[in-house]
Amino acid sequence: MVEVNDNFRQLPVSYLFSEVARKIAAYKKENDACEIIRMDIGDITRPLFPSVINAMHEAVNELASSATFHGYGPEQGYPFLRDAIAEHDYLNRGLSIEASDIFVSDGAKSDLGNLGDIYSRNCKVAVMNPAYPVYVDDSVIDGRAGKLVDGHWNRLIYLDCDPDNHFLPMLPQERADVIFLCFPNNPTGEAISHDDLVKWVEYAHNHGSLIIYDSAYEAFVRQPGIVKSIYEIDGADEVAIEIRSFSKTAGFTGIRCGYTVVPRRLKGRYADGSEVALNTLWNRRQTTKFNGASYVAQKGASAVYTPEGLDSVKNATDYYIANAALIKDAFRKIGYKAYGGDNSPYVWVSTGNGKDSWQIFDELLQNCGFSTTPGSGFGTKGEGYIRLTGFNSRENTEKAMSRLIERYL
Amino acid sequence: MVEVNDNFRQLPVSYLFSEVARKIAAYKKENDACEIIRMDIGDITRPLFPSVINAMHEAVNELASSATFHGYGPEQGYPFLRDAIAEHDYLNRGLSIEASDIFVSDGAKSDLGNLGDIYSRNCKVAVMNPAYPVYVDDSVIDGRAGKLVDGHWNRLIYLDCDPDNHFLPMLPQERADVIFLCFPNNPTGEAISHDDLVKWVEYAHNHGSLIIYDSAYEAFVRQPGIVKSIYEIDGADEVAIEIRSFSKTAGFTGIRCGYTVVPRRLKGRYADGSEVALNTLWNRRQTTKFNGASYVAQKGASAVYTPEGLDSVKNATDYYIANAALIKDAFRKIGYKAYGGDNSPYVWVSTGNGKDSWQIFDELLQNCGFSTTPGSGFGTKGEGYIRLTGFNSRENTEKAMSRLIERYL
Repeated sequence: MVEVNDNFRQLPVSYLFSEVARKIAAYKKENDACEIIRMDIGDITRPLFPSVINAMHEAVNELASSATFHGYGPEQGYPFLRDAIAEHDYLNRGLSIEASDIFVSDGAKSDLGNLGDIYSRNCKVAVMNPAYPVYVDDSVIDGRAGKLVDGHWNRLIYLDCDPDNHFLPMLPQERADVIFLCFPNNPTGEAISHDDLVKWVEYAHNHGSLIIYDSAYEAFVRQPGIVKSIYEIDGADEVAIEIRSFSKTAGFTGIRCGYTVVPRRLKGRYADGSEVALNTLWNRRQTTKFNGASYVAQKGASAVYTPEGLDSVKNATDYYIANAALIKDAFRKIGYKAYGGDNSPYVWVSTGNGKDSWQIFDELLQNCGFSTTPGSGFGTKGEGYIRLTGFNSRENTEKAMSRLIERYL
Repeated sequence: MVEVNDNFRQLPVSYLFSEVARKIAAYKKENDACEIIRMDIGDITRPLFPSVINAMHEAVNELASSATFHGYGPEQGYPFLRDAIAEHDYLNRGLSIEASDIFVSDGAKSDLGNLGDIYSRNCKVAVMNPAYPVYVDDSVIDGRAGKLVDGHWNRLIYLDCDPDNHFLPMLPQERADVIFLCFPNNPTGEAISHDDLVKWVEYAHNHGSLIIYDSAYEAFVRQPGIVKSIYEIDGADEVAIEIRSFSKTAGFTGIRCGYTVVPRRLKGRYADGSEVALNTLWNRRQTTKFNGASYVAQKGASAVYTPEGLDSVKNATDYYIANAALIKDAFRKIGYKAYGGDNSPYVWVSTGNGKDSWQIFDELLQNCGFSTTPGSGFGTKGEGYIRLTGFNSRENTEKAMSRLIERYL
């Protein structure tokens, strides 16, 4: 038998969200009269925008005729999309990111996993606690996490987030080579201000660290002073990669399209100390192990940047934020603690009375017929919390929150 | 600065096919009257089938309405597609591969690269020489290739293919842990018989090796006795992963959809000797670092298995094989040696007079105005050869071959 990657051995076989789905299915089976409202889902529920739908139909039509057929595209993405991203998401906001810094992909989850190919296996990795589980799991698979001891991987640096620090972690005490930051944050729903992020960019400059900045939720930022892109911070293009997605902004969870910014000014070093642009390495990785995002998805994504598309993004994210506000208000009304939601579709809730995450999950499922995501699945500092999302319909959100109020107020 | 993956250092910055494209563009610029016919392309030129186009339009329409919207799908692919693949490509051919063995992805190139996550970095890897460059480049990035010495990576085992062995390599002398086989082969265009493949499955059983079998071109097999799937060989489901793609069979190069078969009976071992199913590891890898292929692509792929779709695959591959036959005949007519093409879209040509690959490439570009792929780009044993493909239109193929005959006969 072939020798396998030993790092898989300590990894739980099942992924957090699969476990939640399994529990809900089991509960439904035993209580078949009950209608469960999914308040746990990170998936959007509103359909694609008309401008996107039209663009995708046009793309499909092009593929129906030899004269307009598109086969293999550039692995980095089509210029029409890279240009639109550079213009609307960066240049128009005064940020000096260019099309050649941008790599279109089939989504943020792939890029997060695959970026591990370009930095050294020796790198010490720092993750927020709680965090989207993929940062930790990717680090485990790639052999950067060490061993699991008392719920912590002993080579990872955990950046604890709790109400005392407003869910903004302190800078690490020891040197971190690679730092995963996510703002607006999944799962806490809290965002970061310009001044707070400056400290991280300074830290990265001082310690030669690479920041992998997950800004999949930037379109939900509403308050002034809150960061949408890390490149708003001076010098960030020398220390940070930024990962974005059309999933939550334009409903592309099933279409699969995202992008990663690897600025050409961002350098790394080989073992002998010689320098290399990470843009060059990522380009080589993507041209070798990836063959471009679907043409239909890229045409759809480019329609997000039309005036109609941009309006639709605003409307869709407004809708989900309003759902999040309903959730936050309802939990505060019954005396629970609730965070996030202002610049994010996520609300982070604790009972304040010491119940653990799966207890709260079970109680709400049984008493109110809606599902949540247990915070402990996001890390040890998520224990005692649950995550709710604004991604369901207004009707279902209102129904779930009425049940909550009715039962607990 | 962050420490990067040192394995990139020895890898040429540019990928073979990018270098060919650059040379063609430079030639065009200097000779702007000249129309260059692309006989090098591995990309198809015929449009998508009507059944696929219809299915994709329907899928886009579903995404336009909340009631029929699809967000995140299963990372392993939708059951409708996994079931269709299992039924048509395996069960109907008497092969016991089931839907749960099949993982749908965004294409074979991604899977080839990402599979390196599940087997150990200590594995000794064997590759055919010549071979599709991705097997070697992936092994380099992942740290399994060692150092480049005189054009060979010193930890790879090269399986030499030449006319003496009909381009079917001998079994390796030393133990290989992972063996990349590709039949019908890219670049030589030669296929493998049942009896010849039996030896490889036996070798893998005897040595505890894993075969990664790239059968992206199986739809081009026409002759009896030639293998389409490695699972036609008894016991192969205990030693082999098979990678397939809709790119060349159904024109999906721009749509991005393929699949990888990891049979549940295929086991590996951890460092301590304990066993684990590779299916479990690949499932964990894909659910963590991938988020499923595009819904639109998967709906399109499922239409490949309708009666109209299956007819269209036959027609399209017949068309490309007929082009390959024209190419092979023309080169034989002028006295060159030409191989492949009978069960493949590829023809593998040498002048027989000691010219090197780039010399032949330049000569044909200048004398006949068509481009080819230099065989040396596929490995040291490709030196002296060029690869041509049947993927251009009939008209362009005929035009290019007329120019060849006119100039050289």
